[in-house]
Amino acid sequence: MPRIVDHAQRRTEIASALWQVIHEQGIDGVSFRSVAQAAGISIGRVQHYFPSKDELVLDGCRQLVSAAVQNHGPDRDPSEPRSAREGLVDLLCGALADGEAFRIGASVWTAYQAKAVSNPDIAAIVSEAMTDQVDALAHLVSAAGAAAPGAEPDASDRADALRLAALSEGLTQRVLVGVMTARDARGVIRAEVDRWLPA
Amino acid sequence: MPRIVDHAQRRTEIASALWQVIHEQGIDGVSFRSVAQAAGISIGRVQHYFPSKDELVLDGCRQLVSAAVQNHGPDRDPSEPRSAREGLVDLLCGALADGEAFRIGASVWTAYQAKAVSNPDIAAIVSEAMTDQVDALAHLVSAAGAAAPGAEPDASDRADALRLAALSEGLTQRVLVGVMTARDARGVIRAEVDRWLPA
Repeated sequence: MPRIVDHAQRRTEIASALWQVIHEQGIDGVSFRSVAQAAGISIGRVQHYFPSKDELVLDGCRQLVSAAVQNHGPDRDPSEPRSAREGLVDLLCGALADGEAFRIGASVWTAYQAKAVSNPDIAAIVSEAMTDQVDALAHLVSAAGAAAPGAEPDASDRADALRLAALSEGLTQRVLVGVMTARDARGVIRAEVDRWLPA
Repeated sequence: MPRIVDHAQRRTEIASALWQVIHEQGIDGVSFRSVAQAAGISIGRVQHYFPSKDELVLDGCRQLVSAAVQNHGPDRDPSEPRSAREGLVDLLCGALADGEAFRIGASVWTAYQAKAVSNPDIAAIVSEAMTDQVDALAHLVSAAGAAAPGAEPDASDRADALRLAALSEGLTQRVLVGVMTARDARGVIRAEVDRWLPA
């Protein structure tokens, strides 16, 4: 029987190896060789999926955004409906976790942010992810504020969403650096949502 | 006449060259050679000031913190006394600017944050800077809240300071990536201070 090759899965495996390389050596340490070695596959195999190193780096950034949305997005578990308020807290706390996966993901995301300054392609991906995040939050803020179901967020909802997103991002950096725990950061977010929207 | 060599100034010049290298090639792109080239001096001259590449990278992190405190700290201009509230806004907005100096400084600081995850020495410097920032903000929050002069900040002041610091840091990332302007970010901070402490 021919071996079934799942292209999407292979790309995800290569992305994981890429993130490991970025975590250890930075984005400028990425090469076909270093990623192939981390993935335990041949250089040719990596090149089969990615025509250039730049495309490999960009795909890793896109996949990091996708993984974050899938893991922490508002539709995480449709079988358990949550209130808009709970969805809001979940989305804001989504990136805040303990353990190696968080540390690698957050440090790689931070490396992409630093690189965005001098790389317009990375800047476009990071900017779109940040804009989408505020948009998703604004819809939850609008719903949590007891607006009519399906109502579009207004300027005030968007301002609240931006403030909450920036707060969550700043706390994530502090957890990443180790100056506070993920648990304490989640506590700050819950307190802020409670302050802004008393239960 | 012998040429007067100002050691502190030379170290600052080398730090500027180091930041340029980190901005362009990441922390892992730092070498005596790359920094000497960016500074327009010999490799031996760089080695005269720094015994190792690691010490050079660490000194650049310390100098980045010092420069930020000097440029944006609460004692920026002692000849013009400000209210605690104005000092608070200034400190929170300090890192938010336009132009190349901000972009380089913020991207290098972000690169150090990403590296802090795997480098305990960098983590210690970044953590101390973040802790000092919250401490300085807590004193201003306490003073702005009309506490007795010289009173130590309480737990509530510290919680407010942490929230404001994280908000400012998250906004800085957004300005760095280009998804919002420094002017808009400063507006968000002023609105948050106004909301929290009506004039």
